[in-house]
Amino acid sequence: MRIPFNKPYLTGKEIEYIEDSLRRGDIGGDGYYTEKVTSLLESRFSLDKVLMTTSCTHALEMAADLIELKEGDEVILPSFTFPSTANSVINRGAKPVFAEIKKTTFNIDPSDIEKKITDKTRAVIPVHYAGVGCEMEQIHYLAEKYNLYIIEDAAQGVNAIYKDSYLGGIGDFACYSFHCSKNYVSGEGGALVINNCSNEIKDRAEIIRDKGTNRPHFLRGEVDKYTWVDKGSSYLPSDLLMAVLYAQLEEMDKIKHMREKIFRRYYDSLKQFLPGSFLDSISYIPEDRDSNYHIFYLKFNNREIRDFVMNRLQNKGITVSFHYIPLHSSPMGQKLGYRAEDLEVTLEVAATILRLPLYPDLSDEQLTYIIENIVDVFKEL
Amino acid sequence: MRIPFNKPYLTGKEIEYIEDSLRRGDIGGDGYYTEKVTSLLESRFSLDKVLMTTSCTHALEMAADLIELKEGDEVILPSFTFPSTANSVINRGAKPVFAEIKKTTFNIDPSDIEKKITDKTRAVIPVHYAGVGCEMEQIHYLAEKYNLYIIEDAAQGVNAIYKDSYLGGIGDFACYSFHCSKNYVSGEGGALVINNCSNEIKDRAEIIRDKGTNRPHFLRGEVDKYTWVDKGSSYLPSDLLMAVLYAQLEEMDKIKHMREKIFRRYYDSLKQFLPGSFLDSISYIPEDRDSNYHIFYLKFNNREIRDFVMNRLQNKGITVSFHYIPLHSSPMGQKLGYRAEDLEVTLEVAATILRLPLYPDLSDEQLTYIIENIVDVFKEL
Repeated sequence: MRIPFNKPYLTGKEIEYIEDSLRRGDIGGDGYYTEKVTSLLESRFSLDKVLMTTSCTHALEMAADLIELKEGDEVILPSFTFPSTANSVINRGAKPVFAEIKKTTFNIDPSDIEKKITDKTRAVIPVHYAGVGCEMEQIHYLAEKYNLYIIEDAAQGVNAIYKDSYLGGIGDFACYSFHCSKNYVSGEGGALVINNCSNEIKDRAEIIRDKGTNRPHFLRGEVDKYTWVDKGSSYLPSDLLMAVLYAQLEEMDKIKHMREKIFRRYYDSLKQFLPGSFLDSISYIPEDRDSNYHIFYLKFNNREIRDFVMNRLQNKGITVSFHYIPLHSSPMGQKLGYRAEDLEVTLEVAATILRLPLYPDLSDEQLTYIIENIVDVFKEL
Repeated sequence: MRIPFNKPYLTGKEIEYIEDSLRRGDIGGDGYYTEKVTSLLESRFSLDKVLMTTSCTHALEMAADLIELKEGDEVILPSFTFPSTANSVINRGAKPVFAEIKKTTFNIDPSDIEKKITDKTRAVIPVHYAGVGCEMEQIHYLAEKYNLYIIEDAAQGVNAIYKDSYLGGIGDFACYSFHCSKNYVSGEGGALVINNCSNEIKDRAEIIRDKGTNRPHFLRGEVDKYTWVDKGSSYLPSDLLMAVLYAQLEEMDKIKHMREKIFRRYYDSLKQFLPGSFLDSISYIPEDRDSNYHIFYLKFNNREIRDFVMNRLQNKGITVSFHYIPLHSSPMGQKLGYRAEDLEVTLEVAATILRLPLYPDLSDEQLTYIIENIVDVFKEL
């Protein structure tokens, strides 16, 4: 049996909506379906302002522009994340300062954030790993105390909850991803969320997203022609991609439930091996938050065991994966002056984590096959 | 009769290819159709290296990154262009220096480029307005003489020819647009062309486009895992959009021919009014180049006549348009220290140009209606 690591789930409505979008002819940015997904996200997650973007990367870059990040500034973020989190800081000339993660959730550790705050710190970017929220109460406390912006990297966090709030609705800004590897897909795509900000910030966001022009204001009839008013880039996604996304978001809870079922089966079948001589932990959701079940992982006691299990499963046709190579220990992190040993927990997690296939189309039969093979290899450890 | 200004043309294959892309499941960046459009563009236009991007704006930004544009640098470009041309320079901290256009083609004037070259000038960005090539021989001569990069802004120039070369195949870099307002559409989308550059530059381009990672090299089996190696952003278009584009590019000459027929009818019907007391010029293609017929324009003797004709046609249901508000005279241009009177020809062209509807779906009946109404209003002048 060959089991891929991931497969984008289709609800069946995608083609119908794409055809409709093509028929309307309005397939550039800010068309019919862009408005529909924007409204849906704003109302479902109680968000103040959503702007759909070409990617989560670009939403992060927009947030950096909106806080006017510049050379000399510092931003605190985990090293255990995708390069885009740090690129959004570097691309604006500022310095990413990497903080440690917690061993429980692999999310940024608030106590290490506080240690790394300096006079230059402008913002913190908590990354909600695996769709499980960061310690937002503590991070919010630090942000108030030291006057920092919070930019949530909720790339993996769409439709997950921390206490009473949806992820993305907590920080000053938040960034979602709808990349084809995520729970809800548009192919490539993302969104910037702006919470509790001034109208000036919201206006500026629209301008930056639309090539530095006041076209959004022109389309609303607020000015009689549009022109170049500020710097900006092109962050509007094609309406064709938003048509795909609308089909997905209409069924967001159904998709979440399908993922949860798989997550629970992994959890219930594998928790018996904890605490163990080879298994350190498995995916964990604190009681005060609700995951979107983006990732199920195993964490082993050392790299040799992880690699042994990984190879065995791969040989059985089961595609498993690990990530991330911690940013601070990557070639680019080294260029920035970081040393691998700077962040011990991060290094250890990256060396011992193993991610299992998790997607709605994973059949019961496939899931049974994966679990049986894991249990088999565990018997040898 | 109501006639829109533009309507994206569909070949009929778009949905079939989108369905195929969805079925393949590989709807992120660098999928099946991305490879197909890349090969098609490289072979059809004899280009060294093409990288499909999320937009022409982003292709321009990539070119700025690849020449390592930085604060203190200057780049010469026309003011008569879309804001993205200048934003790509400003976003990297450099200064856009606006040059005058020629009265014949509205393309950048090489004699004014030379006047504006300083020790700080790093590059020139010729914009091929309306799908008619700039004076590339003279620009190439200047670039050699003063050691400048040439970045062709060929947003409007796909499938047009200057002497023996397709536009996009002449400069060090070139940028195409497949925005829904262009001749060949993907919704939002573009491409970066790299001509005669080193392998280092091509490698770096792939890395910048893919979030600063060496994932492209990983996918080719050149490294055994991928990691963060440089700064970068997310410039890979969804394969769904490339599926749409492939349907378009397969029929690129048919589409060009349909546009040419409309262009010729405008030209043949309206040239009789030249030279005139109210009409200054109409769309013009020098004999040594071949247009892709992206735009047909009329240029009047003054703004009052232009506005009179524009209003009359709009009242008859014919959507006409003008552009650009010259960048140097826009609010952002003013912030950069330019004065409206700096570029006389540019100001005059922008005040007197009128663009007519031009797209394959424009019927004979609609075209006749437009021309008759133009001739009617001309009789009153």
